[in-house]
Amino acid sequence: MKEKILEYLNKGHDYLSGDQISGHLGISRQALWKHIQDLKDSGYDIVAVPHLGYRLESRPDRLFAFEVSRGLNTRFIGKKIHYFDYLSSTMDLAMQLGMRGAPAGSLVLTESQTKGRGRLGRIWFSPKYKGIYLSLILRPEILPQASPVLTLLSAVSICEAVKKVTGLEPQIKWPNDVLIHNKKIAGILTEMNAEADKVNFVAIGIGLNVNNDKKSLISQATSLKEQAGTQIDRLLLLQELLRRLENNYLLLGDKGAKAIIEKWRSLSLTLGRHVKVYYQHKHIEGAAVNIDEDGTLLIRKDSGIIQKVSSGDVVHCRQ
Amino acid sequence: MKEKILEYLNKGHDYLSGDQISGHLGISRQALWKHIQDLKDSGYDIVAVPHLGYRLESRPDRLFAFEVSRGLNTRFIGKKIHYFDYLSSTMDLAMQLGMRGAPAGSLVLTESQTKGRGRLGRIWFSPKYKGIYLSLILRPEILPQASPVLTLLSAVSICEAVKKVTGLEPQIKWPNDVLIHNKKIAGILTEMNAEADKVNFVAIGIGLNVNNDKKSLISQATSLKEQAGTQIDRLLLLQELLRRLENNYLLLGDKGAKAIIEKWRSLSLTLGRHVKVYYQHKHIEGAAVNIDEDGTLLIRKDSGIIQKVSSGDVVHCRQ
Repeated sequence: MKEKILEYLNKGHDYLSGDQISGHLGISRQALWKHIQDLKDSGYDIVAVPHLGYRLESRPDRLFAFEVSRGLNTRFIGKKIHYFDYLSSTMDLAMQLGMRGAPAGSLVLTESQTKGRGRLGRIWFSPKYKGIYLSLILRPEILPQASPVLTLLSAVSICEAVKKVTGLEPQIKWPNDVLIHNKKIAGILTEMNAEADKVNFVAIGIGLNVNNDKKSLISQATSLKEQAGTQIDRLLLLQELLRRLENNYLLLGDKGAKAIIEKWRSLSLTLGRHVKVYYQHKHIEGAAVNIDEDGTLLIRKDSGIIQKVSSGDVVHCRQ
Repeated sequence: MKEKILEYLNKGHDYLSGDQISGHLGISRQALWKHIQDLKDSGYDIVAVPHLGYRLESRPDRLFAFEVSRGLNTRFIGKKIHYFDYLSSTMDLAMQLGMRGAPAGSLVLTESQTKGRGRLGRIWFSPKYKGIYLSLILRPEILPQASPVLTLLSAVSICEAVKKVTGLEPQIKWPNDVLIHNKKIAGILTEMNAEADKVNFVAIGIGLNVNNDKKSLISQATSLKEQAGTQIDRLLLLQELLRRLENNYLLLGDKGAKAIIEKWRSLSLTLGRHVKVYYQHKHIEGAAVNIDEDGTLLIRKDSGIIQKVSSGDVVHCRQ
């Protein structure tokens, strides 16, 4: 009902009397008044003027599920949204929901995380109302070894959405760091629940620094606000991100990993660079010449030998 | 305390007076009487004769955690046992426990399952007190694509334990069916929770038909009792299985997958046979010539071309 009230107020864009609204929606004046109070408590600025009625002045900077759904127009991503003011970690909940059979496209969304997780157990700093913190449940019909393409797909989707909404042009450091001017704006963590020959489900976790202030960021990190010099509409950005994720996921199903890899290559900050890759207590140095369709990075060492690396941390060396 | 009472009764092997027992264990006669009643309720046949005392006549056919632990002598497998009279599925619980940080070697054990799961969502029939139904949590430092070796390792361990305890000689149909005389006695399901470059944990599920009666088995299945012609001690077999699993797991860490694959080959019913492998709505036919160190089956087709299959269902053709 609250969504309907907002929808109706939004349409009018002018004062609407209590009688008009309650008549239109078939509820009592008393019930309407109660809903309006709840909305105001949630941060909706609704003014009430005697003899004129109600008017919606502004919406709060919140990612409420019904706001995300409004005008989203996706086929399956975000059809079910689990929204929280805070969570320990969207990944923990998403993995739980996945095990309980949550449908593909289910979204876990939170305004802050107390224990946001990154790759290999690292922490993702998730201050309240500043970023976008989500986990998306997917049920792709792929083998476990094909799962890295989903991380690449997510990085591509973030770049596309950020560019569309802000005009900024992020790039990707292999495998899954999204950077602007060599500073990190987003991290991606893909976890799966799988048998040897079947992925049961994956949860893709995305942490995106949107309106973080410079002083709250570590030196290797940045936010879209810092880069764009202006506050960014998190809701618009989130919706665009969900659309891009869906489009790219459908593209993957349609055209295969190749189509995603092509997009990834064009956004890559790593390919063509001299890099060091640290993995499993070892490291390898050389030119990053390409990535495979399974997301593996190909490094040409000084000896000319080409070595494959399926995971690790990349350092881009100065040339 | 119940374990201590059993231990003490077991040592004596003759009548022990209530005073002796309660004195030895530092409990009251009243408390002892209560514990003895509980043990009798659990199926322990303890006779009480006036002026003589208590004697343990027999233990019940149950896999109580403290019975499994007694004399197990493993380093880490089974140090923590979660035992249930029935469960929907040991895998579901093990995956939950894994997410909550259960240590490597934690064991979920049940006397029956209402929804025992096999590979690809198939059902594992788990009648009460007839089989061994367990899930083992491991935290191997491997990449997700290396996980199939754990399934092979489990199949090898089952064969070794069954041979040691019953004298029967099971063989393995690729990848993970354990057969005697071409009928299935055990199934293995390995599920993992993983990132692209790190396995967080795996749960290895094992269902083993031990004392199932012929009439309760489908035609492609058999039980150790049916094959051996005698009731099998489930407890001894389970303990041996846990020891073999641990030994082989330590061997894997020590010598690598090669050592496991060698054992697997010697137990294989598939290698050298003409087979059909059904996988992902396709099938391939040819000679099963070898398996790789990552568990991949190599099929030589009539054309001479060798094709790799990483998962599927094998049908052994008559030659």
